Amino acid sequence: MGLFSKDIKTKDDLFVHTLRDIYYAEQQITKAMPKMIDKATNPSLKQALERHATETEGQIRRLEQVFEQHGQAVKGVTCEAIDGILKEAEHLMGDVADPEVRDAAMLASAQAVEHYEITRYGTLATWAEELGRPDCASLLRQNLAEEEKMDESLTALAKSSVNRQAA
Amino acid sequence: MGLFSKDIKTKDDLFVHTLRDIYYAEQQITKAMPKMIDKATNPSLKQALERHATETEGQIRRLEQVFEQHGQAVKGVTCEAIDGILKEAEHLMGDVADPEVRDAAMLASAQAVEHYEITRYGTLATWAEELGRPDCASLLRQNLAEEEKMDESLTALAKSSVNRQAA
Repeated sequence: MGLFSKDIKTKDDLFVHTLRDIYYAEQQITKAMPKMIDKATNPSLKQALERHATETEGQIRRLEQVFEQHGQAVKGVTCEAIDGILKEAEHLMGDVADPEVRDAAMLASAQAVEHYEITRYGTLATWAEELGRPDCASLLRQNLAEEEKMDESLTALAKSSVNRQAA
Repeated sequence: MGLFSKDIKTKDDLFVHTLRDIYYAEQQITKAMPKMIDKATNPSLKQALERHATETEGQIRRLEQVFEQHGQAVKGVTCEAIDGILKEAEHLMGDVADPEVRDAAMLASAQAVEHYEITRYGTLATWAEELGRPDCASLLRQNLAEEEKMDESLTALAKSSVNRQAA
């Protein structure tokens, strides 16, 4: 299978294509993280983003294992969805001057990133099972669990800000 | 506040900006749905997408109520994230010839759309509470609940395909 969606003939092709899509996405996220961490003011947000950056490295390694176990070359394919999500995040991050408002915007952007990853890992794990690859499904579910946990931490952080406001 | 992220000075500005972002997103989704419904082969998928299209209309009305209750003109602002997600969906939908594989790709795309909406409505509802607008928060939580339910239905549909395969 080539890199383009027009080359997708089978469910296996679709699985590999989507694997390349999330592999590219994780790499773009890795590139975006240092700037986000640098711009974050709230120490809990900074810490959460740092944890995310470290986890992303591990998730990329797991994806590489999935490629290998499935007998496929490790490569990415441009993912317009994550490009759009990160572009939006970057605009907000660069444009908002007030640190507290910028933190809130960055937290929301980080959650949009998480949700993209959650949906893709959920889909990929289901397809891996369908293709008779429980070994790949298990690795993908590990990434999914990490993303879900990170999203929960970010939700708690967003709510704690509301509670501070109300106190 | 203007339409651009550089005009965001306060949390209220950020709330209104993000409201415009999801308003634009819902409208783009409305435009994309008929083509997706038309291309779907699996009757359960077609039905789920039709329900989504109907729900989206109601969600747009709720968003208009939120704008009004918050004393803001109803308008959208380009959302690069949803544009990217829908562009990716359209490429897959147009390029994959096999109906079963195309259905699987469309189901995954629909879930990516749901997750973008889930994250935005979650954020907006939290911010509405923070801004002392429980009336707006309540409407946004209604949209959130519908999106979460739709995502669950789509997950069940994706898994039923795996079970069919295993049977």
